[in-house]
Amino acid sequence: MSAYSSRIAIVNITPCGTCFTPRVSQNEIFPVTATIFSEKTDVITAYINITDRSSNLLFKKEMELTNLGRDVFTAYLEFDNIGIKTFTIFAFIDEYKTWAKRSKIKMNAGQDELLVNQEGYILLQRIKNEAKDRDSLAKIDAAIEKVYAGKTSVYEVLITDEFAEIFRIYPLFTLSTESQSNCFEVKRQLAGFSAWYQFFPRSIGAIKHLDGRITQGTLKTAAEHLDYAKDLGFDIVYLGPVNPIGTAFRKGKNNAIQAEADDVGSPWAIGSNAGGHDALNPDLGTAKDFKNFIKKAHELGLEVSIDLALQASPDHPWVKTHPEWFTLRADGTIAYAENPPKKYQDIYPINFDNDPEGIRDEIIRIIEHWAELGVSVIRVDNPHTKPLWMWEYVIKKVHETYPEVIFLAEAFTRPPMMEALGKIGYEQLHSYFPWRNTKQEVEEYLRTVNSSASFFGYSTFWTSTPDILTEFLVKGDVNAHKIRAILAAMGSVTWGMYSGYEFVENVQREGFEEHIDSEKYEIKFRDYDKADEHGIASLVRLLNEIRKNNPALWSQHNLAVHKTDNASVVCFSKSVPLKNDMRNTIITVANLNFAKEKHAKIKFDLKKIGIDATRRKQKTLLVKDLFTNETFDWDFSISLDPKKDVARIFEVISYAN
Amino acid sequence: MSAYSSRIAIVNITPCGTCFTPRVSQNEIFPVTATIFSEKTDVITAYINITDRSSNLLFKKEMELTNLGRDVFTAYLEFDNIGIKTFTIFAFIDEYKTWAKRSKIKMNAGQDELLVNQEGYILLQRIKNEAKDRDSLAKIDAAIEKVYAGKTSVYEVLITDEFAEIFRIYPLFTLSTESQSNCFEVKRQLAGFSAWYQFFPRSIGAIKHLDGRITQGTLKTAAEHLDYAKDLGFDIVYLGPVNPIGTAFRKGKNNAIQAEADDVGSPWAIGSNAGGHDALNPDLGTAKDFKNFIKKAHELGLEVSIDLALQASPDHPWVKTHPEWFTLRADGTIAYAENPPKKYQDIYPINFDNDPEGIRDEIIRIIEHWAELGVSVIRVDNPHTKPLWMWEYVIKKVHETYPEVIFLAEAFTRPPMMEALGKIGYEQLHSYFPWRNTKQEVEEYLRTVNSSASFFGYSTFWTSTPDILTEFLVKGDVNAHKIRAILAAMGSVTWGMYSGYEFVENVQREGFEEHIDSEKYEIKFRDYDKADEHGIASLVRLLNEIRKNNPALWSQHNLAVHKTDNASVVCFSKSVPLKNDMRNTIITVANLNFAKEKHAKIKFDLKKIGIDATRRKQKTLLVKDLFTNETFDWDFSISLDPKKDVARIFEVISYAN
Repeated sequence: MSAYSSRIAIVNITPCGTCFTPRVSQNEIFPVTATIFSEKTDVITAYINITDRSSNLLFKKEMELTNLGRDVFTAYLEFDNIGIKTFTIFAFIDEYKTWAKRSKIKMNAGQDELLVNQEGYILLQRIKNEAKDRDSLAKIDAAIEKVYAGKTSVYEVLITDEFAEIFRIYPLFTLSTESQSNCFEVKRQLAGFSAWYQFFPRSIGAIKHLDGRITQGTLKTAAEHLDYAKDLGFDIVYLGPVNPIGTAFRKGKNNAIQAEADDVGSPWAIGSNAGGHDALNPDLGTAKDFKNFIKKAHELGLEVSIDLALQASPDHPWVKTHPEWFTLRADGTIAYAENPPKKYQDIYPINFDNDPEGIRDEIIRIIEHWAELGVSVIRVDNPHTKPLWMWEYVIKKVHETYPEVIFLAEAFTRPPMMEALGKIGYEQLHSYFPWRNTKQEVEEYLRTVNSSASFFGYSTFWTSTPDILTEFLVKGDVNAHKIRAILAAMGSVTWGMYSGYEFVENVQREGFEEHIDSEKYEIKFRDYDKADEHGIASLVRLLNEIRKNNPALWSQHNLAVHKTDNASVVCFSKSVPLKNDMRNTIITVANLNFAKEKHAKIKFDLKKIGIDATRRKQKTLLVKDLFTNETFDWDFSISLDPKKDVARIFEVISYAN
Repeated sequence: MSAYSSRIAIVNITPCGTCFTPRVSQNEIFPVTATIFSEKTDVITAYINITDRSSNLLFKKEMELTNLGRDVFTAYLEFDNIGIKTFTIFAFIDEYKTWAKRSKIKMNAGQDELLVNQEGYILLQRIKNEAKDRDSLAKIDAAIEKVYAGKTSVYEVLITDEFAEIFRIYPLFTLSTESQSNCFEVKRQLAGFSAWYQFFPRSIGAIKHLDGRITQGTLKTAAEHLDYAKDLGFDIVYLGPVNPIGTAFRKGKNNAIQAEADDVGSPWAIGSNAGGHDALNPDLGTAKDFKNFIKKAHELGLEVSIDLALQASPDHPWVKTHPEWFTLRADGTIAYAENPPKKYQDIYPINFDNDPEGIRDEIIRIIEHWAELGVSVIRVDNPHTKPLWMWEYVIKKVHETYPEVIFLAEAFTRPPMMEALGKIGYEQLHSYFPWRNTKQEVEEYLRTVNSSASFFGYSTFWTSTPDILTEFLVKGDVNAHKIRAILAAMGSVTWGMYSGYEFVENVQREGFEEHIDSEKYEIKFRDYDKADEHGIASLVRLLNEIRKNNPALWSQHNLAVHKTDNASVVCFSKSVPLKNDMRNTIITVANLNFAKEKHAKIKFDLKKIGIDATRRKQKTLLVKDLFTNETFDWDFSISLDPKKDVARIFEVISYAN
């Protein structure tokens, strides 16, 4: 028995939870689609029925035939409460609509008038039996009376909007078919709509003494920086790992193999005699400082993320307490990380196959330890080098006690593993965004990411990281930083920025696609009070504000790329239907050439922003420029001179012209 | 539990029979692919295990990593016996290959020599325990002796091809994972590799008398034409419906609403007082004539196809015996076919919902009646207007008794229904091929059709039909007919031609994309003896010969489109690995401009014809031109002047340059 064995075929239901539960986020307006067809040319009506766990109908919504040529029906849904939702799709041959469609053609052609009325009369009798409410019954009786009195024909009565509405409430159907039950999970909004700001607490409030010594910042001093993150409109502050840092084989500045005595080390070399993954680096402060930091963040409406980097420095307590969690080499020593011929003596990878359940339970304990302290977002370092079964179990288990915890997978690897991480539970995924810089790359990637794939993990667009500083940002300087921030913030529901990006720090370590003097290995001093003067902080603030104000930007299932006639200009829109037949649409047009002015004519696809077929020839749209707040009739052409603007963001004000 | 919960992920297995059984045909060399990966950087080895119904291993074949960036592994299979085959994919971390890969890099970098040899020594001890055959054991002992004698290092011994082969036979593995069992069905070769030739028996041997009267041909006279079809290299002769033709509302020549007294009627208006779907049109002859016709076809190695057109003329016996099988209108009359405002009074559609099981069983009876007479291919007219559940049941039931019967769906409708018909059992499907004429259309369609979709129905490329005569064929005349025959015969495993195509009959009925004086409504006279002189019969003969000689053309899973720098020139190859490291590759280059000479440089992707990475820079290929039999070094450029040639077909002779 397949879906084709049913009387109407209801297939390709998206989102579809065959093996994994698709996810959406609270207040995300998202489409449910299905391919629905039969062997008949009759008109099909389809509803999505949202049901509770006992399959009781909670509410239903009519689906719209959105792609006739492919038989695709769509309904947009939105939930303000979280949890698993189940649904079925119910489709039937709509006898009234079928009759109405055929009869209109026949009457216009002067055909079969008698037959049309005979058929209509049968429908009229049937609807009289079906209708329940007094209002509809009164209308039906009145109509029958008029017909009997010869004042009008059955056809003329039935073809009215009034009767279309009655038949909509009490449809007459045949071949009714219900799909099998399907489900998706509504996660809290931050799981799918977030702006990340990273900073290293040890840099914030650090003091450079006259003799060159540095006193590093702490969680206490860093707490001041929360106001700054809040002011720029971010949702999540991400601190990297906060665990004790190993000293054996510690890396120096710029990843030097030998550290100087005063080098602070990479926070990713986890574990010292001060403790391991469940310990706080004492240089950052006390448990109380950590709690106060979280408290202040929460007061500001910010959430705090730390790293889960499952690897150990040679000083990690596990090396003594659980040597079996590492790999013994043929020569009897513990294996450090290698990628022949490269060696990473400062890091011992964990061998998950030596004590799978033991390590797994320890990881759960670690995450729950931090979750209990108020950490609600976990950024997992290199999850793709750990077993998938383990993550599937760990995330599920943590969510039983701490359902609010959001997991971000920092996995730069081949697509099948990234897809797997999303499916088994990671709400957010690092992405290839930093390396998508040409027009073709940007367009293709926006399409890839804003698709049904996002039901299984949102791709977080990071503008850069200490380890990823692309040529584009180096060469394009301020303008490139603006372009990439705009593409990230408008192109994905979730985007992120490392501190320093707003200051346009963009010098590469020679021979590497990464920052020189990387903050991973040393303390950085920045005058954040001047972020607004010297960098792109104002733009960032504005982007986050636009994101918060526009529901179109809360969904990863509504982006359309529009063709432009210039090789440097990209245009994309995000659009969602709102209640009361309203709509929210944001259009981004960017010049990817950071140096030269470019003009473009855009072949704007009005269908993609919900404008119906009859009005698709219109030549302009009334839009508001969200940078200038100016409202004007946009003629789908653009001129962008990077000396002034690298992009424009428009909100559609009116869909008629 | 998902495939990700296994220790190695084995996903996206193709062909995949989750709901429907994928199909291949006998002697089709086809790929089985899977995405296989783990969290480790270790080397994975994967095998496909072909098993019998009791899950016993019949044979296994190593899969090759064919797309590193996407973790795709591939094995090519071929079967000379039909039936359901089951398989699993078995993957493991290959300890030897992992060690060898890393050790080579380390030794080249002068690193860890001692450790490499220590690790190797452990492998050497283990393989000594694993190896079973005398030859391998002798090699292992000899190696150990040499190592002990200090004549060589463990590394030097193990890194040899000799030991790679021993470890291939007795792999040392960890994390071994077996996919769940999967299956596909091998159908007889004609299901997936066939050339169709259509003719109307009543035209063959028809006589035009001096007074204008026509005596129509019969199965007896038409039997003569089988030699002609055989000579042109076809496999299936398709006769259209052979049932009695109705007289009520009979259509005249050129679909005229009023037939003349001597009009023969459309064979698709089925049923008269001479009988219905199980009856032979008496004008074509007797049951004995039919049997003789089939007998002669079989003697020539041809198979015979007739139509199953499930509709009735108003004279069909069912109208009296089973009026409930039709639809009663509100005015009490039987509904004829309509597509408002169009009316087809000569055809009563069957209403399958009135007596589903009754009609279904009657259809099975009809098909089995003809199958018993030797009809082995059924071309179903408009299957998309009948319920899918019915076809699923009927095809399965007929195959229980007559497994040799092949079903072709003549469904021109939207893609979801066509896909459904293939999945529920139709071996072959009519396709959009006739309407794909520009370079972009041709390339895109070849890619679409030659894909994993073909595991669920082969798309038959018909050059034209009486109802489909495109502008391209009208304007392009002989050259267009050549181009389309070449694209059809080389682009799909199954192609077809209606009689008259070889004579370049290409006059449209005014205002319609169909033939004037269509053979559907009248007898046609052609001098088939002169087919070779006046048309493209020789080309057709050659195409069918090329198809039969080249296994690359027997598979629908091996086509690659190669970019060309000319907007009219398309280039595609089909290539399969053969036994003994041989390969068969056919390259087609065609100029779609039927009037003008075109030159093109082709960006030929050597990877697609199995040439390995080290040799992909070669500038030429030794090929044989299958039109001229000339062998030469092809430099991937082409010049095609339609006055001489519209296309070239090359067989690759040598893969080195």
